[in-house]
Amino acid sequence: LTSRLPNVGTNIFTIMSQLALDHNAVNLGQGFPDFSPDPVLLELVNQAMHAGHNQYPAMAGVPALRQRIGEKIFSLYGHRYDESSEITVTSGATEALMSSLLALVHPGDEVIVIEPFYDLYIPGIQLAGGIPVVVSMNPPSASKPSYSVDWQRVEAAITKRTRMLVLNFPHNPTGIVLSEADLDALETLVEKHGILLLCDEVYEHITFDGRKHLSAASRPILAEKAVVISSFGKTYHITGWKVGYCTATAAIMAEIRKVHQFTVFTVSSPFQMALAQYVANPLPYTQLSAFYEKRRDYLSSNLEKTSFRPLPSEGTFFLLADYSAVSSLSELEFARWLTLEHGVTAIPVSAFYNAPKAQESNHGLIRLCFAKEDKTLDQAIERLARI
Amino acid sequence: LTSRLPNVGTNIFTIMSQLALDHNAVNLGQGFPDFSPDPVLLELVNQAMHAGHNQYPAMAGVPALRQRIGEKIFSLYGHRYDESSEITVTSGATEALMSSLLALVHPGDEVIVIEPFYDLYIPGIQLAGGIPVVVSMNPPSASKPSYSVDWQRVEAAITKRTRMLVLNFPHNPTGIVLSEADLDALETLVEKHGILLLCDEVYEHITFDGRKHLSAASRPILAEKAVVISSFGKTYHITGWKVGYCTATAAIMAEIRKVHQFTVFTVSSPFQMALAQYVANPLPYTQLSAFYEKRRDYLSSNLEKTSFRPLPSEGTFFLLADYSAVSSLSELEFARWLTLEHGVTAIPVSAFYNAPKAQESNHGLIRLCFAKEDKTLDQAIERLARI
Ligand SMILES: CSCCC(=O)C(=O)O
Ligand SMILES: CSCCC(=O)C(=O)O
Repeated sequence: LTSRLPNVGTNIFTIMSQLALDHNAVNLGQGFPDFSPDPVLLELVNQAMHAGHNQYPAMAGVPALRQRIGEKIFSLYGHRYDESSEITVTSGATEALMSSLLALVHPGDEVIVIEPFYDLYIPGIQLAGGIPVVVSMNPPSASKPSYSVDWQRVEAAITKRTRMLVLNFPHNPTGIVLSEADLDALETLVEKHGILLLCDEVYEHITFDGRKHLSAASRPILAEKAVVISSFGKTYHITGWKVGYCTATAAIMAEIRKVHQFTVFTVSSPFQMALAQYVANPLPYTQLSAFYEKRRDYLSSNLEKTSFRPLPSEGTFFLLADYSAVSSLSELEFARWLTLEHGVTAIPVSAFYNAPKAQESNHGLIRLCFAKEDKTLDQAIERLARI
Repeated sequence: LTSRLPNVGTNIFTIMSQLALDHNAVNLGQGFPDFSPDPVLLELVNQAMHAGHNQYPAMAGVPALRQRIGEKIFSLYGHRYDESSEITVTSGATEALMSSLLALVHPGDEVIVIEPFYDLYIPGIQLAGGIPVVVSMNPPSASKPSYSVDWQRVEAAITKRTRMLVLNFPHNPTGIVLSEADLDALETLVEKHGILLLCDEVYEHITFDGRKHLSAASRPILAEKAVVISSFGKTYHITGWKVGYCTATAAIMAEIRKVHQFTVFTVSSPFQMALAQYVANPLPYTQLSAFYEKRRDYLSSNLEKTSFRPLPSEGTFFLLADYSAVSSLSELEFARWLTLEHGVTAIPVSAFYNAPKAQESNHGLIRLCFAKEDKTLDQAIERLARI
C-alpha cells in the first residue's frame, strides 16, 4: 500500500493528548477549552431534537444560521455576505479548509503557507494535488520578542503558478495578530498578483490588550479574493460539536459547495438549529477576549517566576514558552520529557514546521494552551516551577 | 475561476427537495425518513452534553462506540475488526467515502463504478485524481424485471491501473441486493486481480422477503481488501446527525485516518457518546427490515393500481417506478413535471448515470422513497392515481 501522505503520521495533538492521558499529566497541549458551554445552548439543542430537526438540513447549512453568521460578519467587519450564495456551514473549520483546498487548488498549483503553520495545511494542499511553498516568519529575537511576517519574503515566493496564500490570524501557535500595516502589505500583494487567500480565522474573537482582529472580510479588496473560515468551537466551548463555516464570493463559494456536498454533504442539524437561535445574542463572543486575557496574564505572569520564559501572545488561547534555560533537548524530546518526568503536556513548536525540517528546527519553544480552569493552570504552574 | 468539477452542479437531492418545497409537493425524492428517532436516544444525547462531552473526542471516534460497532459486525457478519486500528467513526457515510477515496486512490489510478450509481462516486474519484471507469448494470427487461450486475463486464473493465471497485449494496437507486452467487463472483475477481473494494453498505439493515444483506465483511477474502462503510442515519432515523463509520484492515485504515484527521478531524461528541450506549441494544436495527417491508408493500401494491409500474425492491427504502405508460418525457423533465403538475416529487434515475450520458439515458424510471409516514404515502398515491 503506497501512502498518499508518506510524511504524515498521527497528528501531534492526538499523540500528546494520549501521552497526557497515559501519564496522568496536566494537558496544556491540544487546543480545546475545558469550560462548559452555556446551558442555554444545550437546552436549545435538546429542543431542536425534540422539535424533529434530525434529518438532513440544507446542504449549505440551515438558512437562519447562515443569516446570523452574515449579520455578525457585517456588524464586526463591515462586509455583507449574501447568505444564500456566499456563506456555507461546515463540519468545523477543518472541513472548510479541506473542502476549499480541494475545490480551488488544481493539480500543479502552488500554494504558499507561512511557517510555523497548522498541521493540516501541507497535507491538505497535497491531497488537492497542489505544491506547498513554505515561507518562514521572522523568528523571535532579542530586539523583537515575537514572531512576525515578512511580506517581502511572501511576495518573493509568488510565481506564475501560485494559486493561493494560506493565512491564519490570530495565529496558531505563535499568538500574533495582524496589524493594519500587515493588511496594507497584504492588500498590495493581492492587488498586484491576484492570488486567492485562504484565511483561517477561528480565533477571531480572542484578541488581547485592546487589539481588534482584522479579518480579510474587513477590506473589500481582500474579501473579493478570500475564503474566510471560522468556527463556533473555540467561541462557545463546543470544539466537539464540529460546526464551523466559510464565506467567499458567490463564484468561489459555488466551487466550495460542490466539494462540501461530497466531503460531508451537510452538518449536524440539531446543533445548527440551536446555534441559529443562540448566535443572535452577541454577548458570549464579545466577552471572550477579556475572559481569555485574564488567563493569558495569569499563566504568563506565573511563568515569569519559573525558568520558562513566556513569549508575548496577542490572541488565540495559546502562548509560547522558551525552555532554553531548562534544557537543550529538541522540542519533541522536551515535550515528551516534560509529560513523562513532570506531568505537564505541551505541544512542541517543531510540529508546526515542514516535516523534513521539523527534526532540525529547534527554537527551544513549546506551546501552552491556557483555555483551562484555574485549578488546571495552577497545577501546571506548580509543576513547571519545580523544574 | 476554473472548476475542478465542471460537470457537477447542485446535487439532484437538493434540487428536488427545494422544488418540492417551492411547489408544496409530497416529497418522495431525497432519501431521508420522516420518522422521529427513539426519544431514549435523544435523552442520551442530552445527558452526554450535560455530562460535559462537548470537546474534541478521539480522532478515530469514541472508543466505546467503535467497540459497539465491532461487536455488531462480528455478530452479523462473523468478522472481527480491532476497534483500535480497524474502525473509524466518520461524519456520515459521505465523509467515509470521500476520505477513503482521497487516501487510497492515487492520481492516475482507475476506479470502477457500476452504473447506475450514487452521485458522489465520480466526483469523489476525480477529486482524488483518479479516473472513473463506468460499467453498466443489466437494465430491467421483460424476462428479468430488475437490474443485475454482470460480473464478466466488471472483470473486463479491470486493467493494470485499476485500483479499486466501488460497490453499493443494498443498491441505491435500484433496490437490488447481492446474492451468494454475486459474492462468489466478486471473490474470484478480487483474488485474481487484487483490487481494493469500497463498499457503501448504508442500507445493510433494510432487506426484504427474508433476504439477508451479504456484507463484504462476511467473506475473509473480501474483508482483506474492502473498506466497508455504513451509517447510523438510515438505521435510527437520524440522517441529520451525520454519524457513520468505516472498517478495513489496519494497514488500509491507517491511510484513511491520515485523511480523516484533515477532512473533519473528528465527529460530534455528544452523538457518539449517546450512540455508544444506544447501539448496545440491537432491537431497533433488527426490526428495521420488517418496518420498511410493510411500507414497500404498501407503496408497491397501491402503485399497481395506477398507470405507474413498480419494479421489485429487495432492500433500501427506495423503489423504482416505470412511468412509460404515462409519458415519454425524459426522466428529469418528467420528475419536474410530476412535481409542478401533480405535486409528487421523485428522483429521475438519469441522475444516477454518468453526467455526459445522463441526458440521453432514459429508462422511463423514477425513484420513490417510501421511508415516510402513512399519510404522506397515501397523499402521494392518491395524486399518482389521478394521472
Ligand atoms: C483539531 S485538534 C487540534 C486543536 C487545535 O487547533 C490545536 O491544538 O492547534
Ligand atoms: C445526502 S442526500 C441524499 C440522500 C440519499 O442517500 C439519496 O437520496 O439517495
